[in-house]
Amino acid sequence: MKCLFLDVISGARPEGPPPLWMMRQAGRYLPEYREVRAKAGSFLGLCGNPELAAEVTLQPIHRFDFDAAIIFSDILTIPIALGHSVVFDEGPKLAPLASVEGLERDPDKWRPVLAPVYEALRIARAGLSADKALIGFAGAPWTLAVYLAGGGNDEQKAARLWAYRDPVGFQQLIDLLVEAVAQHLIWQLEAGAQVVQIFDSWASGLPPDLFARYVVAPTKAIVEKIRAAKPDAKIIGFPRGATMAGLADYTATTGVNGISLDPSTDMTWAVEKLGVTLQGNLDPLALVAGGDALGSAVGDILMATKGASFIFNLGHGILPPTPIDHVHALVKLVRGGA
Amino acid sequence: MKCLFLDVISGARPEGPPPLWMMRQAGRYLPEYREVRAKAGSFLGLCGNPELAAEVTLQPIHRFDFDAAIIFSDILTIPIALGHSVVFDEGPKLAPLASVEGLERDPDKWRPVLAPVYEALRIARAGLSADKALIGFAGAPWTLAVYLAGGGNDEQKAARLWAYRDPVGFQQLIDLLVEAVAQHLIWQLEAGAQVVQIFDSWASGLPPDLFARYVVAPTKAIVEKIRAAKPDAKIIGFPRGATMAGLADYTATTGVNGISLDPSTDMTWAVEKLGVTLQGNLDPLALVAGGDALGSAVGDILMATKGASFIFNLGHGILPPTPIDHVHALVKLVRGGA
Repeated sequence: MKCLFLDVISGARPEGPPPLWMMRQAGRYLPEYREVRAKAGSFLGLCGNPELAAEVTLQPIHRFDFDAAIIFSDILTIPIALGHSVVFDEGPKLAPLASVEGLERDPDKWRPVLAPVYEALRIARAGLSADKALIGFAGAPWTLAVYLAGGGNDEQKAARLWAYRDPVGFQQLIDLLVEAVAQHLIWQLEAGAQVVQIFDSWASGLPPDLFARYVVAPTKAIVEKIRAAKPDAKIIGFPRGATMAGLADYTATTGVNGISLDPSTDMTWAVEKLGVTLQGNLDPLALVAGGDALGSAVGDILMATKGASFIFNLGHGILPPTPIDHVHALVKLVRGGA
Repeated sequence: MKCLFLDVISGARPEGPPPLWMMRQAGRYLPEYREVRAKAGSFLGLCGNPELAAEVTLQPIHRFDFDAAIIFSDILTIPIALGHSVVFDEGPKLAPLASVEGLERDPDKWRPVLAPVYEALRIARAGLSADKALIGFAGAPWTLAVYLAGGGNDEQKAARLWAYRDPVGFQQLIDLLVEAVAQHLIWQLEAGAQVVQIFDSWASGLPPDLFARYVVAPTKAIVEKIRAAKPDAKIIGFPRGATMAGLADYTATTGVNGISLDPSTDMTWAVEKLGVTLQGNLDPLALVAGGDALGSAVGDILMATKGASFIFNLGHGILPPTPIDHVHALVKLVRGGA
């Protein structure tokens, strides 16, 4: 059976509608998700329960017939596997890390902590038909370092300060995170993921030299490590909030097959300048709003990406208050059934 | 007496060091500021006391001999003048506005609320020598709308949603803010400001069509209104977090004399592509870090902007934990006395 998503991430330019999925498509806007989440007791409990994680992974495919499922997990599984304490309490809370010394370096020790993700991938893959792709993911080293250094905030202050004050020590942290992210993605590919996405959610606002050193270079290293183990691996990068020069460098340098773009990106420009498969970039607020705003935003994206190797997605995760009817309307708009 | 800052914002390209000031240069990192702030009792009390506001405006000039003073005030003076309640409690708190109907439209009613700013400008100008420029400022309509719609947050969610759901009503709000911002800046120029800066602190992450409609177009309208009253007015825009395409459109379209750039902007690109005076763009975290990181970041900016019409500044406001010694080091680095 043909899988449109895998064709497009391999470079195909279908004449019909693009493949479609949504970041955070398994989540709080769905009543069936909230039900399973309540059963699991806690967010981390849900991530750590392979059966329930696989179940919520498949829910949006059943409801919306999306072209890809993304495994239900969290980018902070890696800090947890490295032995760092992470508490979820209306968002993640991490104790600020001051040195790489406190982190676990032995992959054999990471594996049991991450194992529920691989088991969930196996269960989810078995529940998907061959025309649907299964996506694994991890946070990128810079974004994980932002959480580890200061708990995550919109200006990545603690991580930037660490990088300026102690570039050697900070690079050691980045290097360890490169190892862990690459290993986690390889294990996910072995467990049934057909594509992996690297989320650099805190890539915005960085000075160009920091972006090159802590976003582009580590991502390139991860892609090389994955390809050494899995030469045909399909990889999507998401350096959210990167500048246009940063996006051009990222796609030209890292070796990713695709790039996910946030809502600020001009898709006409992206089609012209970024020589990889594009993914994105509907404003999640336009999906909350629905109606004319949604129709016009979707129309603009479809027009700009006509004839390109393109996967329809949001520019950022779906928001909890999104009405389910608006998601159904989106599917119709993208697939031309409206 | 020559004023280097006014020469450069008029387009001059000095052979020597660029003029220098810092966003939020009067503020919590200075003990003499904290003393006056304590005397004033509250932040709004300080903004509303012309003598004390003028005093803190001049403090960084006395200590660092900067080339420009910026009046001590806040961008939320305009919502207050429009009759909206604003409380400062570790950052501003505003009641969410749902319609422009509740706001005051009569400039004669705005004026008494804003009058302390004009009085502070008169006092500050009298205390400055002719070689120092005095800068007035206001928040841009989009950024003020973000605060009015939802209190301000990093994804401008409430304002974006309002714009999508009710573009007519939202445009009425933007239009009223254009009037108020232009009027406030004209009154500041009449009171002694020689340059005005328009802060669009929440311009980041906007889809291109929203950026054109709510950042570029209102700024163009404000510049036209100011120039109709003050043909020689010098105006700096700061659409923080704009994309490179957005910056190019902003400088080509709005009529500003200068653009302030955040730390993510590649200054070599800016010198090549943006045909106005440039201002920026040191990462405030590099100033907190000091040492090699500061030296190298300053050196890169000076190298990239050599021969350009350029004002040295931070890419965003100075942070409260910045050591004063680092600011002295910055002044030496920029002026070549190191």
